[in-house]
Amino acid sequence: MNAITAVDVFDVRFPTSRSLDGSDAMNPDPDYSAAYVVLRTGSGHEGHGFTFTIGRGNDLCCAAIETLGAFLIGREVNGPEDLGEISRLLTHDSQIRWLGPEKGVMHLAAAALVNAAWDLAARRAGLPLWKYLTGLSPEEVVGCVDWRYLSDALTPEEALEILRAAEDGKAERTAEVERDGYPAYTTSPGWLGYDDAKVVRLAREAVAEGYTQIKLKVGADLEDDRRRFAAARAAVGPGVRIAVDANQRWDVDQAVEWMGALAEFDPWWIEEPTSPDDVLGHAAIRERLAPVKVATGEHVHNRVMFKQLLQAGAIDFLQLDAARVAGVNENLAILLLAAKFGVPVCPHAGGVGLCELVCHLSMFDYTSVSASMEDRVIEYVDHLHEHFTAPAVVKGGRYAAPVEPGFSAEMRRESLDRFAYPDGPEWSIQ
Amino acid sequence: MNAITAVDVFDVRFPTSRSLDGSDAMNPDPDYSAAYVVLRTGSGHEGHGFTFTIGRGNDLCCAAIETLGAFLIGREVNGPEDLGEISRLLTHDSQIRWLGPEKGVMHLAAAALVNAAWDLAARRAGLPLWKYLTGLSPEEVVGCVDWRYLSDALTPEEALEILRAAEDGKAERTAEVERDGYPAYTTSPGWLGYDDAKVVRLAREAVAEGYTQIKLKVGADLEDDRRRFAAARAAVGPGVRIAVDANQRWDVDQAVEWMGALAEFDPWWIEEPTSPDDVLGHAAIRERLAPVKVATGEHVHNRVMFKQLLQAGAIDFLQLDAARVAGVNENLAILLLAAKFGVPVCPHAGGVGLCELVCHLSMFDYTSVSASMEDRVIEYVDHLHEHFTAPAVVKGGRYAAPVEPGFSAEMRRESLDRFAYPDGPEWSIQ
Repeated sequence: MNAITAVDVFDVRFPTSRSLDGSDAMNPDPDYSAAYVVLRTGSGHEGHGFTFTIGRGNDLCCAAIETLGAFLIGREVNGPEDLGEISRLLTHDSQIRWLGPEKGVMHLAAAALVNAAWDLAARRAGLPLWKYLTGLSPEEVVGCVDWRYLSDALTPEEALEILRAAEDGKAERTAEVERDGYPAYTTSPGWLGYDDAKVVRLAREAVAEGYTQIKLKVGADLEDDRRRFAAARAAVGPGVRIAVDANQRWDVDQAVEWMGALAEFDPWWIEEPTSPDDVLGHAAIRERLAPVKVATGEHVHNRVMFKQLLQAGAIDFLQLDAARVAGVNENLAILLLAAKFGVPVCPHAGGVGLCELVCHLSMFDYTSVSASMEDRVIEYVDHLHEHFTAPAVVKGGRYAAPVEPGFSAEMRRESLDRFAYPDGPEWSIQ
Repeated sequence: MNAITAVDVFDVRFPTSRSLDGSDAMNPDPDYSAAYVVLRTGSGHEGHGFTFTIGRGNDLCCAAIETLGAFLIGREVNGPEDLGEISRLLTHDSQIRWLGPEKGVMHLAAAALVNAAWDLAARRAGLPLWKYLTGLSPEEVVGCVDWRYLSDALTPEEALEILRAAEDGKAERTAEVERDGYPAYTTSPGWLGYDDAKVVRLAREAVAEGYTQIKLKVGADLEDDRRRFAAARAAVGPGVRIAVDANQRWDVDQAVEWMGALAEFDPWWIEEPTSPDDVLGHAAIRERLAPVKVATGEHVHNRVMFKQLLQAGAIDFLQLDAARVAGVNENLAILLLAAKFGVPVCPHAGGVGLCELVCHLSMFDYTSVSASMEDRVIEYVDHLHEHFTAPAVVKGGRYAAPVEPGFSAEMRRESLDRFAYPDGPEWSIQ
């Protein structure tokens, strides 16, 4: 009855390039998209999940989800053991592994399916995912992690110690999250395609709404960056943190030079200064730019890369992504690694539905792993939430704790239809 | 007339799992496959290329080649400038880049197309690829490289110096390659699915044929490894180099322990001891295992990762792959990086057609980049060559210099038909 009987895949694309929402130095005209999946079961419960892309190639992610999704037919999802098994099944097929391993299109597809399986489990338990995770024992959490390649940085025994230490005060922190939510910052003012007046207006609005941190996109043109940053700093004053994000635009020396020219405006962190693959490059940039902090993660493709960023002292903030690595299980490993190294996790969000997902992971991090909110903020971008049945709610600069059962991944049926690519009305009427 | 008019894609799979050819500790039952592409032009010239996979997912690589291949319709391939442009076009689409960047299925697809474009250019020039490359000026070679993210390790100016220094003696080295070929080693004796008697017989045959290096697969069971290694060492004597290959099986400590237990049999190198993403892990293993050498590369996904392996002192041998990174252009960057750091390039081969491709790259490395054959060997596996129109020729333990125009990538029409998946006669009659 609980076995998965069908895996339905949807190619959903929003024409965001028309308004330059989401524009940055590497991504001039993204069409925010989701390769979306629904796991159906005999009992009627569903599991929803997706991976996020910015347009072209979303169809290939859908095809990869079809390929991997076939492995799930007939499988039960009754609890954390099944979720551990499903995660290994989707990332370690000996032939498909050749296409990575654990990176690129196949890993994005695994993310969608793994997240859908967790959505299904949490719905069946009648809990929002963050509370479902919070209810797992340390042993169950550790059992969900793929430990291969991690032991030089973190062993299962060390992870158990971290989780057991966080048992203390868990009930209080859970109540705190339910009452007060979790801090957010906003990127909405800072897209590269916006003019200065719009940046200033949105920055002021953000502070008025209660945000204490905003983010600006940089890296296309230095003089533009200086002018926009100066305007934003003047608009919000010295007490608000302004992070900047170069979206991988620079080589190492160039990152150091460019950021030197922005230092007078007091950047809080520089995000993605160079290639997401360049652990040693990030470490060099961080050393040379201190006290400006370095953040990365939205394109870091798996736990082995995060492990090295931490080992090399390459980052001040770890920006996990809910649907870049292979879903909840791999993010459990990443949260545990970050806790071991004492690096705050500030998830990447925005896109399509990423805000909806990552707040569950940060809230679980607070209740059960790092047990801290210090210097921790979740990105928030106020686009496209209306397409979700349980959209993320941010008030006064804080994410409210999700209360609906599941992972908040479900998109509204009419949105799936309207933005279906290429045959939905939003695309076919052009 | 020279513009590309069509991009034809073929899913070709060989049922190698039936005989356990190619079996190792991570890949128990590969079906060696190619996502194969033909670029057609108005002038009648064709460009052939492929990426290699081990079965499931080959269809996704074919679909990705279709997606990227559309970018090439109408483009001319007249020389190195066009080849540089094509390479950038296939790896830097701003939307598709999100799926990597520069890794996984999309990057494998780019490899197939870039290699096909070089095949086309070399055919039109009437030269085997290695001689076509050897005929390029240092400036033309440097112009083919995507320099983004490399400047902290190698600048275009330094690359020019390396290439200009190798102009000296180029004609003599070219003549030497044509006369004597290039040293090979063989993996044919060492597949994990073979019994001891077969390993010993094939190892003896290899030495009798002139090989001075062979390779054994290890990592599934330590006692089996010790027994097989002892038998192979006894069969070939102390003067023959025996490399071992763990195919990513271990964590860092485990690699050190396992190799410690094999040290008495005098391993020449340990290949892929751990995750191909783990630069710092390889560096730690190398430091702890010296004087046993460390090699990796067949799963290293791009030039940024190779850069770091070199910067970290993580490898003694760089095993580039012809179709894992984005084809010839990215391999030019990798050859130049290796030369800068003084690390010998010993390409990964085997699979389907990889021997055919990599010998061109090593021969160009000798004539025009490192200008050295010291400790350099190209892998050779004697499977599946009969499917190519200009198969690699190895005699007396050396690759003969290819003489046919192009990149030796063309598969015989009857092989494309017979092994077409899933509808070719080899698959549909089961």
